[in-house]
Amino acid sequence: MLSTMQDVPLLISRILAHGSTVHGRSTVTTWTGEGAPRRRTFAEVGARTARLAHALREELAVAEGEPVGTLMWNNAEHLEAYFAIPCMGAVLHTLNLRLPAGQLTWIVNHAQDRVILVNGTLLPLLAPLLPQLRTVEHIVVVGPGDTSVLDGCRPAVHDYEMLLAGRPTAYDWPELDERQAAAMCYTSGTTGDPKGVVFSHRSVYLHSMQVNMAESFGLTDRETSLPIVPMFHVNAWGIPHAALMSGVSLLMTDRFLQPAAIAEMIEAERPTHAAAVPTIWQGLLSELAQHERDVSSLRSVVIGGSACPPALMRAFDEEHGVTVVQAWGMTEMSPLGTVAHPPADAADEEAWTYRVTQGRFPASVEARLVGPAGEVMPWDGEATGELQVRGPWIAAAYFGGKDAEPLRPEDKFDGGWLRTGDVGSITPDGYLTLTDRAKDVIKSGGEWISSVDLENHLMAHPAVAEAAVVAVPDDKWGERPLATVVLKPGASADYTELRAFLAERVAHWQVPERWAVIESVPKTSVGKFDKKVLRKRYAEGDLDVTRL
Amino acid sequence: MLSTMQDVPLLISRILAHGSTVHGRSTVTTWTGEGAPRRRTFAEVGARTARLAHALREELAVAEGEPVGTLMWNNAEHLEAYFAIPCMGAVLHTLNLRLPAGQLTWIVNHAQDRVILVNGTLLPLLAPLLPQLRTVEHIVVVGPGDTSVLDGCRPAVHDYEMLLAGRPTAYDWPELDERQAAAMCYTSGTTGDPKGVVFSHRSVYLHSMQVNMAESFGLTDRETSLPIVPMFHVNAWGIPHAALMSGVSLLMTDRFLQPAAIAEMIEAERPTHAAAVPTIWQGLLSELAQHERDVSSLRSVVIGGSACPPALMRAFDEEHGVTVVQAWGMTEMSPLGTVAHPPADAADEEAWTYRVTQGRFPASVEARLVGPAGEVMPWDGEATGELQVRGPWIAAAYFGGKDAEPLRPEDKFDGGWLRTGDVGSITPDGYLTLTDRAKDVIKSGGEWISSVDLENHLMAHPAVAEAAVVAVPDDKWGERPLATVVLKPGASADYTELRAFLAERVAHWQVPERWAVIESVPKTSVGKFDKKVLRKRYAEGDLDVTRL
Repeated sequence: MLSTMQDVPLLISRILAHGSTVHGRSTVTTWTGEGAPRRRTFAEVGARTARLAHALREELAVAEGEPVGTLMWNNAEHLEAYFAIPCMGAVLHTLNLRLPAGQLTWIVNHAQDRVILVNGTLLPLLAPLLPQLRTVEHIVVVGPGDTSVLDGCRPAVHDYEMLLAGRPTAYDWPELDERQAAAMCYTSGTTGDPKGVVFSHRSVYLHSMQVNMAESFGLTDRETSLPIVPMFHVNAWGIPHAALMSGVSLLMTDRFLQPAAIAEMIEAERPTHAAAVPTIWQGLLSELAQHERDVSSLRSVVIGGSACPPALMRAFDEEHGVTVVQAWGMTEMSPLGTVAHPPADAADEEAWTYRVTQGRFPASVEARLVGPAGEVMPWDGEATGELQVRGPWIAAAYFGGKDAEPLRPEDKFDGGWLRTGDVGSITPDGYLTLTDRAKDVIKSGGEWISSVDLENHLMAHPAVAEAAVVAVPDDKWGERPLATVVLKPGASADYTELRAFLAERVAHWQVPERWAVIESVPKTSVGKFDKKVLRKRYAEGDLDVTRL
Repeated sequence: MLSTMQDVPLLISRILAHGSTVHGRSTVTTWTGEGAPRRRTFAEVGARTARLAHALREELAVAEGEPVGTLMWNNAEHLEAYFAIPCMGAVLHTLNLRLPAGQLTWIVNHAQDRVILVNGTLLPLLAPLLPQLRTVEHIVVVGPGDTSVLDGCRPAVHDYEMLLAGRPTAYDWPELDERQAAAMCYTSGTTGDPKGVVFSHRSVYLHSMQVNMAESFGLTDRETSLPIVPMFHVNAWGIPHAALMSGVSLLMTDRFLQPAAIAEMIEAERPTHAAAVPTIWQGLLSELAQHERDVSSLRSVVIGGSACPPALMRAFDEEHGVTVVQAWGMTEMSPLGTVAHPPADAADEEAWTYRVTQGRFPASVEARLVGPAGEVMPWDGEATGELQVRGPWIAAAYFGGKDAEPLRPEDKFDGGWLRTGDVGSITPDGYLTLTDRAKDVIKSGGEWISSVDLENHLMAHPAVAEAAVVAVPDDKWGERPLATVVLKPGASADYTELRAFLAERVAHWQVPERWAVIESVPKTSVGKFDKKVLRKRYAEGDLDVTRL
């Protein structure tokens, strides 16, 4: 039997049309450091978005399906770009301004960006790259900045406001296929080239609905959200799109990310909701301990990007009455994967056992754990496996480059599932706890040993300052753990003692036979343990290994 | 550029899989009148749903795309049918037990239902129809009832629990196309045959997300919802599907719809949310005035189905601390159209001006007003037009019958838009106020005159008991209003006086020239003014019309 429903595509232009009319009085406020913040209603954003689209099409000849780069802070103009570019049928390509110059260059060349919108304050970062950016023809400078650094550059330089001035405040947005590309974001792993994830209108639309579902962030026009998470990080976790969908007012940090500035803008603008990585919240907590600021407007803040120390969550709760909600996701997941609201029937300390997990899956994110032999593991809160996910806003592939086939590396995709590369367990009621990166797990005799678990136990020993456990080849077991430890000043290495210490805490077959003392644990540029280096040093015989 | 997102269909089986695992502890409680209510967890519902699907497929040979009828109250078993039937690829066909026998028979024959699930308590209603139900081969009796009325009937009779017993508690739900039919519901207008609306998996899924968005009903696993709206009325307004999607516990009335029973179940089971037509709430209010009952668990109740008297909303607010939220929709809209939460910046009495409207559109319901000459009218809160809507859970056609083309009558569809048949205005911030049915509007000289508006003014006159205004043909203006009035006992008809009374209240060109006194206003079976009859009496010269 045929359904008699309309075949209406899920398009970002619908979100824009709705947000700029029904929620035309909602506002986006951009912090400016010194003077008054810059305020704009969603109705104004709607009109300026149309102007920007006209400028991009008529002045810069941006074509359907073409990526348009943005190298911008969180501000009203970036919001305009967030909507104008996909609504006109082009592809918003947010550029991560924190990447090393080489990676940024590689990404722009790979995407073949022809037009880049850049905040004036970021010109010193962009200008030196220009000679290497092979495809860039137009630079649109947004807001004040020293444009002299662009003197003599090959691309044409435009001023954003001049480009918009006098253009029509309406645009006849095309009726696109909902599966068409809307936005893209590159994710940079520790190995290999950055990989582009291309979001569709459909995925953005559905993700926006999920963000505003009461079980997730539950935003409405009664809220003002402060997305401290940058708009160049995977759609700012979906908040800008969700804002226009339900009329959520926005407070934008621009480049003012110092704890004092954030405390000041919260006190002044009274947002009810905010989202950021733990580092930001840690900084804000310290700031609040030193300078009294009224942050009581905050109802709920979302922490994601990396695991949040429970102490940080409790401090916000107890000292400031702010509920911290942990969430987990990935660029490949748009990013919303899980949100750690406790279940309705868990109170007090039991609620905390849920709140410190990565969170609970929504209906649209199907999850499975795949064990060492490829078997699907149960959701019993104990069994671990690699987390694989499936759903309408989850990647099936990476962008292969213009006119190139999408990339589906085997270590990233398994049939219709995204391999997250994370290992963890899931409770019967769908709460995820991640324990390891899959590549750091030791596959020993058909079972997995968690290197993170061993490290945490070792670091609890009074003689140990730091510990890193890595997999090394073993003829009998396939892989076995090698424990490397950094001793505290004055402590000496007693491997027998350390082994016994571990044996009391983990299963006997998980206890390492191979031990080495090292001076320090090698780390990556973002401060994570660099286990590749340790494995290489072991392989090259460059470690003094004791075998018990 | 191609999106790299997964092509995962939006299927009801995903909602079921999620609800019965992640929210496996949420419950559906069915009221039983006398004894203890029947409680079932969503995990149990999931297992029984699989059993039902096995039974339908293996025992009754239900095929993909086949409609399966339900003639049932709101209860746990109806919830199981709500999921088993669409998830296995068949089509849930809810039958409205309040329809006249002739219509019900027509509908079952038109849909060609081969299997009907019926509550035992409804057998006296179904049994007399069976000789006329040409396609029905199987009757599945759910719950106790006098099955002797089925003795000697042609279809095979099965007991629901016996059919389920011993079957597997898991089912390998097929991966369907999201546009495939999931459920159908016939809407019975005052004229013509009933018309079937066929919902798709996609429309149900998106509608469920919308119901749980904070801007709509905002339901989570912290809530228990009491859908008093019957499950045979357009998906019980989406609550059953939304419940499984977010773990909302359900309280089901079964056949106990008397105000006293509803008050009792609210006090005993403490739902936080409820949904019903105004009549139910009016009855509950009277009940509460007579018998003290604790209804303080209710956070929010939704009123829809017909316009809610503001006095009723205020009484719940002021006497019981319950927020009444008006919502508007149609069978053709799944049904959610608008929800009347006031905007964030409207407080107190200003908020009430919004709360008494039909409500605000969500992003997924695009709306336009079409004026008398086919022109699109502005959203200024003043201009009126026929409301037309467009969106992914709105009908594009009616079911034409098995193997027949869908029906697209011109008075119901306009290009890609559904013609709601309602006339009203929309504020700049997207709040809808409906004033007339399009067929009751008088098209006079290219302008519209609201018959409802004239009637309301006339009925405010001390001599007038009731008034009905209908369009009659006019050579010069196309149509003009004819005012028919029922006088209060002892009052006499002074048309000049009534005319002057109206002229002070509406534009002069709207004031009727034709007047008639009638004994009573003819009414339809559901108590609405039957203007067809008045127009016919006028046309046949059967009214004593005075022309001023």
